Amino acid sequence: MAEYVLAADLGGTNIRVAAVDPAGSILYQSRSATPETRTREPIVQTIAELARKCIAEAGNGRQPAAFGLAAAALVNSSEGRVFSSPNLPDLDGFPLAGAVSDAAGVSVILENDATAAAIGEAWLGASRNVGSSICITLGTGVGGGIILDGRPWRGIDGTAAEIGHICVEPRGVSCGCGSFGCLEQYASATAITRMADELAEGFPLSVLSGDRSPSSRAVFDAGIGGDELALEVFRRAGFYLGTAIAGLVNVLNPEMIVIAGGAAAGWELLAGTVRQTMMEKAFQRPAERVKLVPAELGDNAGILGAAQVALQHKPPFIK
Amino acid sequence: MAEYVLAADLGGTNIRVAAVDPAGSILYQSRSATPETRTREPIVQTIAELARKCIAEAGNGRQPAAFGLAAAALVNSSEGRVFSSPNLPDLDGFPLAGAVSDAAGVSVILENDATAAAIGEAWLGASRNVGSSICITLGTGVGGGIILDGRPWRGIDGTAAEIGHICVEPRGVSCGCGSFGCLEQYASATAITRMADELAEGFPLSVLSGDRSPSSRAVFDAGIGGDELALEVFRRAGFYLGTAIAGLVNVLNPEMIVIAGGAAAGWELLAGTVRQTMMEKAFQRPAERVKLVPAELGDNAGILGAAQVALQHKPPFIK
Repeated sequence: MAEYVLAADLGGTNIRVAAVDPAGSILYQSRSATPETRTREPIVQTIAELARKCIAEAGNGRQPAAFGLAAAALVNSSEGRVFSSPNLPDLDGFPLAGAVSDAAGVSVILENDATAAAIGEAWLGASRNVGSSICITLGTGVGGGIILDGRPWRGIDGTAAEIGHICVEPRGVSCGCGSFGCLEQYASATAITRMADELAEGFPLSVLSGDRSPSSRAVFDAGIGGDELALEVFRRAGFYLGTAIAGLVNVLNPEMIVIAGGAAAGWELLAGTVRQTMMEKAFQRPAERVKLVPAELGDNAGILGAAQVALQHKPPFIK
Repeated sequence: MAEYVLAADLGGTNIRVAAVDPAGSILYQSRSATPETRTREPIVQTIAELARKCIAEAGNGRQPAAFGLAAAALVNSSEGRVFSSPNLPDLDGFPLAGAVSDAAGVSVILENDATAAAIGEAWLGASRNVGSSICITLGTGVGGGIILDGRPWRGIDGTAAEIGHICVEPRGVSCGCGSFGCLEQYASATAITRMADELAEGFPLSVLSGDRSPSSRAVFDAGIGGDELALEVFRRAGFYLGTAIAGLVNVLNPEMIVIAGGAAAGWELLAGTVRQTMMEKAFQRPAERVKLVPAELGDNAGILGAAQVALQHKPPFIK
């Protein structure tokens, strides 16, 4: 049996843990709902239990080399600590990596989930063989991960790449982060639903007009069917996403921007406006250069990125 | 005689060339107006002539080890080529480094002037001993330079750090770059003048009210004197500068942001609003962490940064 690592994706709804080999093949995976208490100890125990199941099923008697844990939170990787987690606020300030290490008996490296997705895509997905890329994850919120010269850029405290909280409308919609007009308020699944409600009155003939707070999926389906309300919602989302991307292109001049997450399924409705806005707002040279592409790994981007983090870190972390 | 390098700062108004020793002392410098024709050959000859003067005065018979040339342009350092130069458009596409190398007989490394200022400040100025910093130069325009883990981040084509062209007002004032609502349109010296004109009607008692298109210096002086129009202009500039900085703090989580350039003289009128806006719009952790400081090297930041570039590059470039 060759060596393997564990990788986890801890979200507000589900927890997934997988055993992954050094080539990025998922050997086994297990999933559980995030504990209803949403508190520290049950979360740690659930992760540890899923980890033990993976070791039992895939380990063939061997322990994993390390355990990469991607969390939907502002984290400090080097300390293994959660700074703040809007979805699981009981984790704020918690040394999650150490607690899971103790409970699962494997050294844990903590990573932000959107940075993990960027690492996963750069390892095995859309941005493989690309030195400098930015991955923007459109889901319930908007996350980001930045890879510069092949390495994740985490910033001085590990909080970098919060692309969802770039201000794109200075006096815009208030955001859970405390600011106003963040990209997340215009390009997340939540924002798609809100904008559909806001604009509904102007589109009485829309198939969505009877549907108070339609899901982003319903808005997407309506858009594919040519519904004008849905198309206007995606145009707005695309305008703001393109505005943020133009800034990233001017500031970082990356080779590729990868659009990931659930709402990436809506990419075909976003792409035109995003590209047009980026071309209008960024310098011609870096805008023509950057490749703007959808992600390739789907739901597995984060867990594969966490596995790659574990593989990279394993030598000094092996117990 | 110890070794030395040449460094130049090529702007739309002046050209400066200096001989600089490895400790960053300017041994001699010479200056000339940018040629009125604003064309390639006279610019190259003027730089070469100033370089020869520096060599004659400071070289004591020795040739410089290399020549760093900072230009107010989008450049590709590795090719030594100007992509585009709004102030000196005849340089667009020109292999300036090679042409100056040939004319001056010294190997030339081309650098963007705002990146050079960031390098200079990180070498000898406000951000010395700081690994990751962003330098924002407020002048006629707004430029930027990014230092990550001690190295300038230039992007895949060398066009990165165009902080003046982050969009801060999505449907805002049109910008020379082709976009709308760029930071440069709200925080440059030019913008200070324009905003004073725009707001003048509402402040009939302002000391500036009879002064059509006052200089940014005049607006600053009025602001120091408590003039309400001038203070409102600086509040607006500070709001937009703070908005852009909040985005940089959320995306890059740097240790320090340095405000440089002529308008940095107005820093005391900007600082309060910039800091307040940044704290409101960025995540608490990276916002509390980042140091927001004025530059220390004044007009010499760019030329000292160019000298540092020459010192770093000299081994492979020595003729």
